[in-house]
Formats: sequence, C-alpha cells, structure tokens
Amino acid sequence: MADQRLVRGARTRHKIARHGVDVASLEGLNGLSIGRLAADLELSKSGIQTLFKTKENLQLAVAESAREEFIKAVVRPAQNAQPGIARLRALTERWISYIEAPLFAGGCFWAASLPDFDSRPGKVRDALLFHRRTWLALLAGELHRAVDTGEIAQLDMDLTLFQIDAVLNAANTALRLGESDAASKVRRAVDGLLVPPH
Amino acid sequence: MADQRLVRGARTRHKIARHGVDVASLEGLNGLSIGRLAADLELSKSGIQTLFKTKENLQLAVAESAREEFIKAVVRPAQNAQPGIARLRALTERWISYIEAPLFAGGCFWAASLPDFDSRPGKVRDALLFHRRTWLALLAGELHRAVDTGEIAQLDMDLTLFQIDAVLNAANTALRLGESDAASKVRRAVDGLLVPPH
Repeated sequence: MADQRLVRGARTRHKIARHGVDVASLEGLNGLSIGRLAADLELSKSGIQTLFKTKENLQLAVAESAREEFIKAVVRPAQNAQPGIARLRALTERWISYIEAPLFAGGCFWAASLPDFDSRPGKVRDALLFHRRTWLALLAGELHRAVDTGEIAQLDMDLTLFQIDAVLNAANTALRLGESDAASKVRRAVDGLLVPPH
Repeated sequence: MADQRLVRGARTRHKIARHGVDVASLEGLNGLSIGRLAADLELSKSGIQTLFKTKENLQLAVAESAREEFIKAVVRPAQNAQPGIARLRALTERWISYIEAPLFAGGCFWAASLPDFDSRPGKVRDALLFHRRTWLALLAGELHRAVDTGEIAQLDMDLTLFQIDAVLNAANTALRLGESDAASKVRRAVDGLLVPPH
C-alpha cells in the first residue's frame, strides 16, 4: 500500500512538473504559482504543497522536467548523426523543431525563465545555468571534432558558440512574434559561421 | 491650484513609470505590481491606481518611459557619428553601455519583458514590438547607407539585422550571468558581418 502511494505520488509529481514547464515557457518560471497549477490540473493546492514543500523545490522539479524533455527531443535523436558538422546540424535542426512545433506551450523554457533568474543567485539559477552550459559544451564538442577532422577551418570557438546560441534564441523570440522566416535565418547564419578549410 | 495638481500628478506618474522600468528589467513587465511600486516609492496603492487606472495603462506608461530613456542614452548620442558604419558602430557601442552600465537595474527592459508578452496579443505587446521594429529599422538605415556609399559589400539585410539583434540580446543575457567578455564578442561578431567591398 505504501509502495503504491509512493508510485502514485511520483506520477503526480511528474505530471505537475511537466505542466509547470508549459506554464513557465509562457509566463517565466517565476510566474509559476501553486494555485495556477492546482486549477489547471484540478488538484488541491495543499496536495501540491505536500508533494513539493517549497516553491523553490517546485521550480527545480520543473527545470529538471524541462531538461529531460529537451534531452529526449533534441539531444538524443541527434546522436544518430555522424559526429562533427552533421551532428551539429542535427542538433540545430532539432532545436528549431523544438521551438517550431513547439515542445513546450510558450516556446523555449530557458529563454522564458532565464530573464527572471539571471539577477537572482540560488539553486534555480544554478539549474538553469547548468542546462545552458551543458548545451553549449555539447555544441562545442561537435565544433572541435569538425575542426580536428578538417571538416571546417579553424575558428574562434567561444565566439562561434556565442553566435550560434544567439541566433537560436533570437529565432525563439522571432517565432513567438510570428516572424516565420526565423528558422531559415538560423540555418543561413550557422552556414555562414562554418567555413570550409582552405 | 488645479494646474499645480496636474503638474504634480504628471511628475509622480513619471517617477512611478521610471521606477517601473527598473523593476520590469529585473522581473519582467508582468512581474510589475502596483503594490510593489507603492512599497518601493512610499506611495499609497490607491494613489497609484488613481493615476494609472488599469494595470495595462501602468505597463504602457512603463514601456513608454523605457523607450524615452533608451532614445536618450542610445539613439540620440549616436546621431553625432557619421551616417553609415560609424553610426552603426556608435549605436552598438551605446547599446553595449546601456546593458553594461546598466541604464536599468536588471539590464535590457525589452529582453526581460518580451518573453512575458510574446504570446499575449494586446496593446502592451504592440508597444514592445513597436520599439523592437523601430530599433531594427534604425540599424537597417545605417546598413543601407553603408552599402550604398560602398563602405561595405552588399549583404543579406534581413539576415544581418537578425544576427546583430541576436548578439546584442545574447550579450545582455551573458552579462547578467556574469560572463564579462560578452561586449568583446559583440564587437567581433558585428565586425565579422561587415565585409569590405571587393
């Protein structure tokens, strides 16, 4: 009986956190309230409070849920592509689908949540930053590989990563604002950054 | 007496809206509450309510205040530079100062506010978009001039604007997160986009 309760609790936690990602992608992680989640999911506020204890715990569970979904939708499928440029392109294509489809109701979860937390040190900001850094490290790995195997010319790694990250985030904003050619701009911008070796 | 009251009302409105920009740059325009403004400025909530009537009116006044400050700090000083590349660089340098100084407590007001409103049609979103479009049109004007006078080679105007806007916004996020080399990256990225004519 106790085991079944634990399983049910874990499922409910998971469902709440996943819905929290959708709300946060629209309103920012700080716009997320237990009251809103309770109303949307027809649960009691006290039930949600029992499961997560604090608002910070809820925000951390939501950030973790976003990360799991992102890995499933963007990172893992791209691993089927050859390392280097092919995989870098697969990652950016999957990222474009992630915001075009979109995976979360309001587009990119981190683009919506980072502005609320970038000035607010703490565990939530750390969790959001951890995602940002592992994502950039993933792109960096494929770029390094592409340079090492001679697929592309030497490049300023930090600057190129900054520019790829910048156009991906700009495309998220543009798509949210109905500027439908953003995906094509990302592709052209990334193409322009990857110069063939002499 | 009635005139003095009007003047005093206008001054208070201005002060509230300007402080609202600082709060919104930290929390997003949607995180702005009359209660918070009243507490910060030691005014009564009912007084603020009388001046702005609705939350939407308050948000519009805050967006307008942000725009005025931005024009004073970024747009107008750059008009002293020669039209074309010199003025484009002056605009991006002023923009960098705008987020480095920063002019508003939490960095770029629009970067903090657009994610809250990009999915929410209405007057506030229109005001935020108006700013975005006039800013991009301003940069476009200088780029066109630079191409027409042969300062730089022909370029894909929409794509270049998208990329300049993208790196400026990325620098705002990076600076908020303590990545202090963001300004240098913006400069190098913009330099890379402006190719001398053959």
